[in-house]
Amino acid sequence: MSVDLDVLVPDAERLASRLDELAAFHDSTLPGWSREVFSEPYRASRDWIRKQMADAGLAPVTDAAGNIVGRLPGRRHGAPALVTGSHTDTVRQGGRYDGIVGVLTGIEVAQRLRETGTRLEHDLVVIDFLGEEANEFGISCMGSRAVAGVLRPEHLDRVDSTGLRLGDAMAAFGLDPQGALRQAWSPVDMHAYVELHVEQGPLLERSGTGIGVVTAIAGIDRLLVHFAGRSGHAGTTPMTDRHDALVSAAAAVLTVERVGCGAPVHGVATPGCIESTPQSMGVITNQARLWSEIRSVDASWLHGARKQIVHEITEETRNRGVEINVEWLTDQAPVPTTGLVQDVVAESADGLGLSWQAVPSGAGHDAAHLARLGPMGMIFVPSEGGRSHCPEEFTATSHIAQGAHVLASTLITLDRREGLRSA
Amino acid sequence: MSVDLDVLVPDAERLASRLDELAAFHDSTLPGWSREVFSEPYRASRDWIRKQMADAGLAPVTDAAGNIVGRLPGRRHGAPALVTGSHTDTVRQGGRYDGIVGVLTGIEVAQRLRETGTRLEHDLVVIDFLGEEANEFGISCMGSRAVAGVLRPEHLDRVDSTGLRLGDAMAAFGLDPQGALRQAWSPVDMHAYVELHVEQGPLLERSGTGIGVVTAIAGIDRLLVHFAGRSGHAGTTPMTDRHDALVSAAAAVLTVERVGCGAPVHGVATPGCIESTPQSMGVITNQARLWSEIRSVDASWLHGARKQIVHEITEETRNRGVEINVEWLTDQAPVPTTGLVQDVVAESADGLGLSWQAVPSGAGHDAAHLARLGPMGMIFVPSEGGRSHCPEEFTATSHIAQGAHVLASTLITLDRREGLRSA
Repeated sequence: MSVDLDVLVPDAERLASRLDELAAFHDSTLPGWSREVFSEPYRASRDWIRKQMADAGLAPVTDAAGNIVGRLPGRRHGAPALVTGSHTDTVRQGGRYDGIVGVLTGIEVAQRLRETGTRLEHDLVVIDFLGEEANEFGISCMGSRAVAGVLRPEHLDRVDSTGLRLGDAMAAFGLDPQGALRQAWSPVDMHAYVELHVEQGPLLERSGTGIGVVTAIAGIDRLLVHFAGRSGHAGTTPMTDRHDALVSAAAAVLTVERVGCGAPVHGVATPGCIESTPQSMGVITNQARLWSEIRSVDASWLHGARKQIVHEITEETRNRGVEINVEWLTDQAPVPTTGLVQDVVAESADGLGLSWQAVPSGAGHDAAHLARLGPMGMIFVPSEGGRSHCPEEFTATSHIAQGAHVLASTLITLDRREGLRSA
Repeated sequence: MSVDLDVLVPDAERLASRLDELAAFHDSTLPGWSREVFSEPYRASRDWIRKQMADAGLAPVTDAAGNIVGRLPGRRHGAPALVTGSHTDTVRQGGRYDGIVGVLTGIEVAQRLRETGTRLEHDLVVIDFLGEEANEFGISCMGSRAVAGVLRPEHLDRVDSTGLRLGDAMAAFGLDPQGALRQAWSPVDMHAYVELHVEQGPLLERSGTGIGVVTAIAGIDRLLVHFAGRSGHAGTTPMTDRHDALVSAAAAVLTVERVGCGAPVHGVATPGCIESTPQSMGVITNQARLWSEIRSVDASWLHGARKQIVHEITEETRNRGVEINVEWLTDQAPVPTTGLVQDVVAESADGLGLSWQAVPSGAGHDAAHLARLGPMGMIFVPSEGGRSHCPEEFTATSHIAQGAHVLASTLITLDRREGLRSA
């Protein structure tokens, strides 16, 4: 059986107007686009997502973990599903494309399949995963973790800055936190997972390439350093008698940056913020906390960078007579994509006459969790200026439509393959 | 006329119990001693201060600016007053001595004069000045500024972090903000001002000296630096493409410290805090603000240090492609004490068999403002470990009592001098 890929050309105008309509759901009191998980704009947007899925014939169901799951039945009843999707929450003051294009192109592919009467062998499942972005509960990718079976009871006990438990926040949002813990799919439910996403970095734009074939998703290690110095009067304490926690935290920020700049291949290190007390003018800082993170697709670089950061920060801090405590949290180990899916994405781009390039993903994605269930791949489209997580985030509709076409082609090709897992 | 200084030995037990009683007025929800201006503990403590002054025969009056002014009449009606005092507000999580010992020893000296029937020529005025410590309105020494005639209408329009105007905060505290602007004393009202204070630094303790004869009060220049970088995704933005405002602010913290460490004589530089946005993990910081201050008794070092800090921070920040805006606010120019008062304090210590040492004041004091009205001097007593503005702040009662005795002797000697102003 051969499918005419031309009839699956996505409707770019429909994609563009859905992008605009979804962007309208945001916190209008903040600059940029803020649709954070559990916020009112997010709640409202999810009704709109369900309506788009229904219009595309996807019969959406919201699971206990808050994922909106749309399913277009295939020919073979009970066969594992081909899955695509992403997320529609944003960081605070974020943009209009991150995650969003993966959900909307998934819906578009399904709608074109239905409109053209093209029937796949496997069910096509399009998922809008709950809360992918980092949040105050310190647990990103909530929905995809639940589907992958790695959402844990202890996650529900995490609290935000107001002391609210994640479990209670989920319940207040109309979800079933205990049910979310039992939401895991079995590997036999999933044929393969493919996610389209904006690159969020500058590589594709700089090389003039339309399609990125993602090789791996970066691992993320998060660092919390506590500095305990000694307070004292800012006017009367000689410089040589000081144990200033803020100065130690500042030196650590520069160390984190320096280690990131020394990464040979793909590695970045980002200081997050410094919290310090007291913040009175006239008093030397005695307590400071520094949040930072490092990311790389290379697990051994991450390992070495952790050691280097701890060693250098500890030495520098102790030299100032400031006590230090370092906590590491591995948020995500690096996840390679499945070679076979990479190949299919690349062949699909070739088949459609589109340029492609192998690129790493510096950002984390729901796809990293779905990889636990079976073959996984990602398709990137270019980000203007490489910018993301900010209001200036932009990807041209033409690039999104090309990505949707490659996604359709990839899904159709994977639909015909058997035994992907053993490949 | 000769006064028997032995009869003016302060009642150390009474001083110690008043220190304990006043310390009980503090915000018990915070560690240490917090009695910030306009707080409830501060309000309650002021009734207690008025009662102590009344018990000492000082007939306290609270002026429009909130200063509690106690007066022990002298023989010569209408003569300019000998003035002593300090403040009883604290920084947040501060100590039990800063300012407090100046008010309580002033009360003790007056009480001993009355108890021993010792009558001065001039009125003795003891003042508990309103709000000396730095506060959210950015205006320290509120009460002494009013007395010195340098509280300005624009000060009343300053707001705290909740948007509350200083004028409204004063009115809510039962004061008369417009009256405070007309509270200025005339130089003919004041014969001399002498303030006893804890050193808040380590010099006296290290040299084993009981009394510090203060040579000058440090000037304070405050610095607010705005850094405008570019936000972006922490995983996908290459290190070489970043314009991270937090990294620039951290580098500036180290520059501020380095300039302070390079001060040849008395100079210190203290980073206050860094505020940055967004504080989301996963997003590069695009906006940061750094508060810092430099202090010295040497106006020319302050001038040079300001230039050096601006030059180095600006160059470093621009090299990172981050925009910078620097604001300076001179909070206080250096103020020398009056040579004649220095001499009387030193001779008083000698006369009582106490060791003394000339020391600078790194901290600002109400005395710096009172210097506008006439001759001014300060007496320091040792601070254990040089610590201040923290719960560990401590000065032994024996040192406080020695200081009170020197204060009594100094006031009595100055009482007999005429024409101090021209001296």
